Amino acid sequence: MSDDCLFCKITAGKMDTEFVYEDSDLVAFKDINPMAPVHILIVPKKHIPTINDLKKTDTVLVGEMIQIAKRIAKEQNIADEGYRLVFNCGKMGGQEVDHLHLHLLGGRQMKWPAG
Amino acid sequence: MSDDCLFCKITAGKMDTEFVYEDSDLVAFKDINPMAPVHILIVPKKHIPTINDLKKTDTVLVGEMIQIAKRIAKEQNIADEGYRLVFNCGKMGGQEVDHLHLHLLGGRQMKWPAG
Repeated sequence: MSDDCLFCKITAGKMDTEFVYEDSDLVAFKDINPMAPVHILIVPKKHIPTINDLKKTDTVLVGEMIQIAKRIAKEQNIADEGYRLVFNCGKMGGQEVDHLHLHLLGGRQMKWPAG
Repeated sequence: MSDDCLFCKITAGKMDTEFVYEDSDLVAFKDINPMAPVHILIVPKKHIPTINDLKKTDTVLVGEMIQIAKRIAKEQNIADEGYRLVFNCGKMGGQEVDHLHLHLLGGRQMKWPAG
């Protein structure tokens, strides 16, 4: 855990955030600046700053982030119509919090390109 | 392998596609309609139509897709400046080929929202 990291505080339950999902490794919660009717972040409890910082031993963890996004899409009733999953990495990728997170976006037609 | 799937043909090497990466499970190649200076698709050889079709046993495979995207970003010299990774799932997610693929987009400032 990084002391000055917002997502470390959130995943540790220190911000009274309402989780739509939680297990021993991951949490999911609504984005506070939603860009679609469904906009949920899937976030590991472990402090990994960016995709660039993934270690070989993180392969299952990052795979689980995708699996949980799939599960939440189904729970949110957007699985059949479709949705988009996005990792932003670094400044030109548009990453705003330096703690790995996956955006689940849906409930409207997603446009192309993806930004 | 699905007989009428374009990405099955590509990953099997039947389309003379130039791969920027290949291993026993995955290939990567340039998108034919690039939306950024770097626009590469990471594609499993196994025919999985969408994120919705992932099985529990695919967790490592999908994690590897992210790890390989990270590696290619470094090889393309866009790791430090940043990049975006995108899975489109289904019609409203903007998925155009029904064979799982991850978009690696970089070489320019990615905008928000991601479509």
